[in-house]
Amino acid sequence: MIETVGLLHPGAMGASVGAAAGGRARVVWASAGRSADTRARAVSAGLEDVETLERLLAVADLVVVVCPPHAAEDVAQAVAAVGFRGIYLDANAVSPARTRRIAAVVGGAGAAFVDGGIIGGPAWRGGTTRLYLAGERAAEAAACFEGSPLDALVLDGGIGAASALKMAYAAYSKGSAALIAAILALAEHEGVRPALLAEWGRGDGRLAREYERTIAAAVPKAWRYVGEMDEIAATFAAAGLPSGFHEAASALYQRLDSYRDADPPPPTDEVTARLLRA
Amino acid sequence: MIETVGLLHPGAMGASVGAAAGGRARVVWASAGRSADTRARAVSAGLEDVETLERLLAVADLVVVVCPPHAAEDVAQAVAAVGFRGIYLDANAVSPARTRRIAAVVGGAGAAFVDGGIIGGPAWRGGTTRLYLAGERAAEAAACFEGSPLDALVLDGGIGAASALKMAYAAYSKGSAALIAAILALAEHEGVRPALLAEWGRGDGRLAREYERTIAAAVPKAWRYVGEMDEIAATFAAAGLPSGFHEAASALYQRLDSYRDADPPPPTDEVTARLLRA
Repeated sequence: MIETVGLLHPGAMGASVGAAAGGRARVVWASAGRSADTRARAVSAGLEDVETLERLLAVADLVVVVCPPHAAEDVAQAVAAVGFRGIYLDANAVSPARTRRIAAVVGGAGAAFVDGGIIGGPAWRGGTTRLYLAGERAAEAAACFEGSPLDALVLDGGIGAASALKMAYAAYSKGSAALIAAILALAEHEGVRPALLAEWGRGDGRLAREYERTIAAAVPKAWRYVGEMDEIAATFAAAGLPSGFHEAASALYQRLDSYRDADPPPPTDEVTARLLRA
Repeated sequence: MIETVGLLHPGAMGASVGAAAGGRARVVWASAGRSADTRARAVSAGLEDVETLERLLAVADLVVVVCPPHAAEDVAQAVAAVGFRGIYLDANAVSPARTRRIAAVVGGAGAAFVDGGIIGGPAWRGGTTRLYLAGERAAEAAACFEGSPLDALVLDGGIGAASALKMAYAAYSKGSAALIAAILALAEHEGVRPALLAEWGRGDGRLAREYERTIAAAVPKAWRYVGEMDEIAATFAAAGLPSGFHEAASALYQRLDSYRDADPPPPTDEVTARLLRA
């Protein structure tokens, strides 16, 4: 029975995951070393501050980790070092192989590992966001979110299945957005952008209608898509498939990382100019 | 005034281009060294056989070249070697840089070069296919197709503009088809294909509805997409953009080249299995 959930860390997504668990459990977080923005998100999500990782691990039955891909293993090492023996849910956008490495780290310290993958935006409204879960104790973790806006779904298949699903889903949603931005930049460079947009406007006209919105949605998040594209490239390579799509997407998103959290997003012309200036 | 058009060579696309020019000009082709299939296409398109390249070049005011990307420069060399001095229209899916190399080859021999790019399938019905043209004598070439099912459109911009437009357009249409096939193969490999298809079915559900048709349309043509993806990768690199998307697409299409012209196309399951077996 999970009575207390420890959330590492309340970013835009994590805060909503913590709030979703708050209907059925006490949800704590650790403020030590975190920013004022993170604190503000934690407060508005109704999370209880226990200040340090050690105190969080002392009270939590379930630890939920939502962080950028490159930080996922460091968090696991830090938790394992304290000897946590509850359930450890990694909900990050990492490759199945990295997920299994993380499972070994926290499992070696005595914790039960649950593999998670989040599809959708921050889960403040029902029907927007799924938390896929895999592993022996996935159903226990899922039960924490019953009745909340976050739909927790248990997958068949072992550790790695939830991560693989997240990788496969983002491979198209974020990979094709990068492809579209690169193609527009190419057309701009070659002086054929109006003709390309006219072609995109033919038939169902979907790309012509959607390209600006697709790019605008991706650019403020490009800084954190970089690591995710690298994880997807590694996932493709491990399956014997070409990794180039997402290596290219990673390189493109790197060129846009200065637009971190830009609100409003820059206009498309500025984005293509930035891609070409790199 | 263009009275005679020489077509090199009547493939599935080329035959329709030749037929489209046949309303306003005498259209000839050269059967020497070509296959029985090519001859059958030429006959049904109403093209006149003058047998050799030399005779074709002796009578043609305009030569139209429609061939696989890797053959485009060889064809130009062969035409230049005979000293052709009319208009040379390269309508192939090649990079702007290769187009400019071809222009230099045929221009050096005294011909006027027109850059062409075809978007759409074989032009047997109106409204399906555009032939984009660029270069000083583009309007003269375009006039040959007036009133035909092939819409000939002159682009602003010099030699390379029509090729660049073709590259940019195919970068998405054929690049995203390869991406979709690779993602399905990944999901199959990781055992999460049903969950991925359920996710694709959410929202507008477009991918779930279209993925099988998209893959089925590409697979029989994969053998000739390989060279086109290589040309697109080179076009991206020349613009300072990452070439990985289309290097990956080229590698994937190579794995499918044994399905050349398969009718009906293989089922999706067989395609993903083939991609994973490579």
